[in-house]
Amino acid sequence: MIGSFWQNLKHKRPLIHVINNYVSATDTANLLLACGARPIMADAPEEAAEISASCDGLCINLGTLSASRLEAMLKAGQTANTLDIPIVLDPVGVGASTFRMEAARKLLQNLNFSIIRGNASELRALLHHTTEAVGVDVSAKDRLDQDNLTQGIELARELSLKTSTTVLMTGAIDIITSHGKTALVRNGVPRMQMLTGIGCQLSALCAAFLASNPSESWTSALAAVSTMGVCAEQAEAMLKEQEGNGTFRTRLLDAFCQLNKEALEKEARYEIF
Amino acid sequence: MIGSFWQNLKHKRPLIHVINNYVSATDTANLLLACGARPIMADAPEEAAEISASCDGLCINLGTLSASRLEAMLKAGQTANTLDIPIVLDPVGVGASTFRMEAARKLLQNLNFSIIRGNASELRALLHHTTEAVGVDVSAKDRLDQDNLTQGIELARELSLKTSTTVLMTGAIDIITSHGKTALVRNGVPRMQMLTGIGCQLSALCAAFLASNPSESWTSALAAVSTMGVCAEQAEAMLKEQEGNGTFRTRLLDAFCQLNKEALEKEARYEIF
Amino acid sequence: MIGSFWQNLKHKRPLIHVINNYVSATDTANLLLACGARPIMADAPEEAAEISASCDGLCINLGTLSASRLEAMLKAGQTANTLDIPIVLDPVGVGASTFRMEAARKLLQNLNFSIIRGNASELRALLHHTTEAVGVDVSAKDRLDQDNLTQGIELARELSLKTSTTVLMTGAIDIITSHGKTALVRNGVPRMQMLTGIGCQLSALCAAFLASNPSESWTSALAAVSTMGVCAEQAEAMLKEQEGNGTFRTRLLDAFCQLNKEALEKEARYEIF
Repeated sequence: MIGSFWQNLKHKRPLIHVINNYVSATDTANLLLACGARPIMADAPEEAAEISASCDGLCINLGTLSASRLEAMLKAGQTANTLDIPIVLDPVGVGASTFRMEAARKLLQNLNFSIIRGNASELRALLHHTTEAVGVDVSAKDRLDQDNLTQGIELARELSLKTSTTVLMTGAIDIITSHGKTALVRNGVPRMQMLTGIGCQLSALCAAFLASNPSESWTSALAAVSTMGVCAEQAEAMLKEQEGNGTFRTRLLDAFCQLNKEALEKEARYEIF
Repeated sequence: MIGSFWQNLKHKRPLIHVINNYVSATDTANLLLACGARPIMADAPEEAAEISASCDGLCINLGTLSASRLEAMLKAGQTANTLDIPIVLDPVGVGASTFRMEAARKLLQNLNFSIIRGNASELRALLHHTTEAVGVDVSAKDRLDQDNLTQGIELARELSLKTSTTVLMTGAIDIITSHGKTALVRNGVPRMQMLTGIGCQLSALCAAFLASNPSESWTSALAAVSTMGVCAEQAEAMLKEQEGNGTFRTRLLDAFCQLNKEALEKEARYEIF
Repeated sequence: MIGSFWQNLKHKRPLIHVINNYVSATDTANLLLACGARPIMADAPEEAAEISASCDGLCINLGTLSASRLEAMLKAGQTANTLDIPIVLDPVGVGASTFRMEAARKLLQNLNFSIIRGNASELRALLHHTTEAVGVDVSAKDRLDQDNLTQGIELARELSLKTSTTVLMTGAIDIITSHGKTALVRNGVPRMQMLTGIGCQLSALCAAFLASNPSESWTSALAAVSTMGVCAEQAEAMLKEQEGNGTFRTRLLDAFCQLNKEALEKEARYEIF
């Protein structure tokens, strides 16, 4: 299933408008290009709506948020909604400041998102409107693993229900849920947390998958996170002695260039229930 | 000819003011440094003119445009014109929004550029003031190859005449034209289109070549695009099995560090007519 | 001594608020992550104070300065001072424009910094309030080596006295000085000057060391610059024929992932007097 979604992405070459923080913008653009998608980064309120109108998907990312960028997000999002262009929300560090939390609230009130992608701390903050989180990384108590999986699934389902979106909660185990349909993905490597912007790249990838597989937000999120996890495993496996995060970053992009449908299907490890 | 231009660049170590989008800013700075040039990125209206005044060249790039950045471009450009500091324009995605098109029009009305560098879609939009293009990549019908080469040359010449600049149109074949003097360059590899910001880097490189070889805009553009193409070919040739865009990005920067005059002269493939 | 500082950094995993230029933001974030620190980049005035309040350290970097970013720096810094969170200042290109010089003056008047990190041209400009420097790189006459070491030490000491901070002046030889206590570090490789943002990364690393070793600004600066130098030497040593700045950039991040206390202690070359 996800293999054909990957093929559709490679074939469709969707144009994706990404309003991305400037920290991970380069890597996000390069990831989309490696998948055959065509990124356009544009965050001026003067052009955001017009840019979105010509695209197949939109990804809104709250990192390095500014008032001007928020205005652009709202304009781009409204146009996207009007034209049925799918939108992905990445609430980077939403629990770290009132400004981001209010921005997220405004975006959720005014726009319909297809997918929300975040770590457990971000999604918990989003659900409960709390800003007790610190930083952009998941807090220790929220780190998703076998022990707190049930709470994680519960949280994701609640948020999905409340926002009427597909929710993708990433961690050591990833959770995808929508309308009571839930999947767990067990791909990926710990090193993904030691590089900036892997989450941002994944969110943009969700938009690219969804733009190539219209209306299939749940499966698109599942395919995106599986693809990222499988490629990360391949990148990690290629590391030699003395190599670390620098080489991993390079190899991850290489892996996306090499990935084919069969390898993805074979190496993806997910369960649906 | 272009070999000595490269030597002049390495020897002069020009200071280049680059008002670059934030997506490719890191790569652009690193490319200039690898050539011996010294980049300074500064896009605040408060300092743009003063920064430009101390530089040997200016590169204006329309990616991730903002109102503030446009103001900085105008101020930097006016100072550069006054002081006879050469300016390169990269109209990134100019056909993708009215905002960028109006910005480009304003820049062309108020400033004298030495070189304009873009793909066929961008340069067509610039010539005809149309915003039918989508994204920042060349559209399928505009992809420059043997079949539409004549139209490409025609377009480049028209724009060069209209704007009194050297026009560098990049594609599978690159066209450089000024005052009826035209060159075609056949270096480069397809993978260059699969990485973000190669065009931005090339535009900044044009500014560095021109700053080191004053008044020679046509040959500087020819030298810059040949150098980029030759280095890209070397980077591609070094790729091993399982390597892709990530390693290519690394190898491209490596290739610039290794390039010498003789190799450049030997591997550049261009014709002048 | 510096080995245990490194261990404390790896163990503490400090949260560092970095107001960084967009050119080197990715590399700075990745460097902090490779050390076990957790970066958060945020430069909106609306959230800067709140973000800083939750962090263990703050790094303020003047690259690609804007009026809005300056406002954020002041707000973040005031909160950090109130809460005794250490602040590092990186006056990128402060001698290149009146705007940056005035910003630096304002920051120094309103905030207490623990460490100021810059090259000799930047620190000279800061001390004498002159904007004769060009670009963001050290000028030829200011390049720190054996010949002008005495003047360099004098300048660093004067600035340290005037600003009541630890001053870290980087060059072929690095100088760390505070309260009459001075160290020289002889690690590092010339290639560090051929990549953008190594200085920015080092400044953020100073903040991470200091956040993990409270009140020890002098030793933290010494440890940070030694660590960077040792890792750069390891990265350079790993380069093969035909490899250059691209591979070096990758290997530098790799080296930080591999570094242990013993190797750092063994390879650091500094003298205290």
